[in-house]
Amino acid sequence: MIAVIGGEAESPSDACMAYEAGAEIARRGHVLLCGGRGGVMQEACRGAREHGGHTIGILPGATREEANPFVEFAIPTGLGHARNTIIATAADALIAVGGRYGTLSEIAFALIGEKPVVSLGSWRLVTLAGEPVPVIACASARDAVDVCEAATVGGQGGA
Amino acid sequence: MIAVIGGEAESPSDACMAYEAGAEIARRGHVLLCGGRGGVMQEACRGAREHGGHTIGILPGATREEANPFVEFAIPTGLGHARNTIIATAADALIAVGGRYGTLSEIAFALIGEKPVVSLGSWRLVTLAGEPVPVIACASARDAVDVCEAATVGGQGGA
Amino acid sequence: MIAVIGGEAESPSDACMAYEAGAEIARRGHVLLCGGRGGVMQEACRGAREHGGHTIGILPGATREEANPFVEFAIPTGLGHARNTIIATAADALIAVGGRYGTLSEIAFALIGEKPVVSLGSWRLVTLAGEPVPVIACASARDAVDVCEAATVGGQGGA
Amino acid sequence: MIAVIGGEAESPSDACMAYEAGAEIARRGHVLLCGGRGGVMQEACRGAREHGGHTIGILPGATREEANPFVEFAIPTGLGHARNTIIATAADALIAVGGRYGTLSEIAFALIGEKPVVSLGSWRLVTLAGEPVPVIACASARDAVDVCEAATVGGQGGA
Repeated sequence: MIAVIGGEAESPSDACMAYEAGAEIARRGHVLLCGGRGGVMQEACRGAREHGGHTIGILPGATREEANPFVEFAIPTGLGHARNTIIATAADALIAVGGRYGTLSEIAFALIGEKPVVSLGSWRLVTLAGEPVPVIACASARDAVDVCEAATVGGQGGA
Repeated sequence: MIAVIGGEAESPSDACMAYEAGAEIARRGHVLLCGGRGGVMQEACRGAREHGGHTIGILPGATREEANPFVEFAIPTGLGHARNTIIATAADALIAVGGRYGTLSEIAFALIGEKPVVSLGSWRLVTLAGEPVPVIACASARDAVDVCEAATVGGQGGA
Repeated sequence: MIAVIGGEAESPSDACMAYEAGAEIARRGHVLLCGGRGGVMQEACRGAREHGGHTIGILPGATREEANPFVEFAIPTGLGHARNTIIATAADALIAVGGRYGTLSEIAFALIGEKPVVSLGSWRLVTLAGEPVPVIACASARDAVDVCEAATVGGQGGA
Repeated sequence: MIAVIGGEAESPSDACMAYEAGAEIARRGHVLLCGGRGGVMQEACRGAREHGGHTIGILPGATREEANPFVEFAIPTGLGHARNTIIATAADALIAVGGRYGTLSEIAFALIGEKPVVSLGSWRLVTLAGEPVPVIACASARDAVDVCEAATVGGQGGA
């Protein structure tokens, strides 16, 4: 289960990258997890659904109306932004596409849980001490999924 | 999306009822939602999977190892018992099979959210003032799913 | 730390009982925990504050505006009704005054956590099998706090 | 209500800075909110308590044993790391002292909620596009509390 995380109002290039990430996740037989709303989340779901994959959306609100039309299984939580912690906990690996503070919170929770995190034009983090943070920058959706697969082999398993 | 809720260590008759509920949910094309663990949850998932349905398990822990083998999509939350609120929020209707305090918490949250709740040998609630609580007792899994379908038609829709 | 739980729109007798419970909790040097809003919660806070006690309100929303004026420490959570689980987890014992489904959810979570629960005209629960549920009915606020103190001595301690 | 956030195993200089932040928060009559555990959290609580302030600890586990001895009001949540979202939601402003991924998640949630965030040797964030992130670096605890007060005046108010 691989999450694609990112914001609701994204640039065309982020939307394109998200679509490709969703498509690649589906082609390789993984399940796409996301926050279920618009922007990057919608494009990733569309990419996955158009390539035969399953998509799950963990929603902040209490009803499924806010889900984008490519979410196959919508999970309204009623938890607001705290639902971000569930996305990071439930995913085996995460691919961040662009994104702002919500995405940053998901990356932080994924790092707490020692999950692999790949960045496609998303946050690049360096601690004050100059220590690098294990967020792996990739240039393509294919590379991103390669990294996710490699990082979870022998770990807690794929989807 | 219909939830089957109930405990981990249940009687043979509860297990049988849970299996039938899962099977009936799958036969009618709905998605089964549950807490993802053993007992009633496992039997409901088994019933659904053996009849071609999809199953989602919202887990209390942070890893998917605790999921029963019939959970198709395991969602570890790391929230402990608070994950019960998500099951009640995400389901369109709930079927309670036996169960103890965890099940009671899910029923309570479903009632807060004005979701239909059916009891198959589970909690029967009456307020101190003698006011009845809208938990509908049924005798069979088929009746239970009938009630769920009738109660959500025209409402927020089925799965 | 003793929680007083109950609804927002309560009868005058429930309001009176809640005030007395808050007052008694303060007189004995305990901290009052509650959901921070109106009705029973407000009266309990008022009783505690007017008798020199501390009051904490765990709020469902993301801002402290919804707190009643007698909440000394307001904790907005942004979690909606799921904040009920925190009240049950954080309290050493709970006193339920009237209340509806929200109160029922807090009682259920307290029972999951094996916390003492006292009812002042609140839910009286019996399982289908006729097995009694350990919610202790009391007639006065003084008795209720007595039971809370007795049940937590030697247990996980008072506030 | 001002939160001091940071990790459990911190350097002596971070511990000292956390103590000073807690002391300054108390001197100005604010309430200290934190995660309730050791390291930065404990030193901030100690500083506040030794200067007559109130301290609240939002704990990840389900019992209050894990609270440091300077937490006046311990709130066990049972939510694990998701409790970080509550700290960011409940605080009017946050002061980050050192810290790792847990601290990063709290900063991210605070930014989502548009809360003022001050860094005392903590994460310095820049987006990929080079856009600065509104985390204000300060050199002393006094400056940090000054910034918190200035940023919340006319906003949602102090503690």
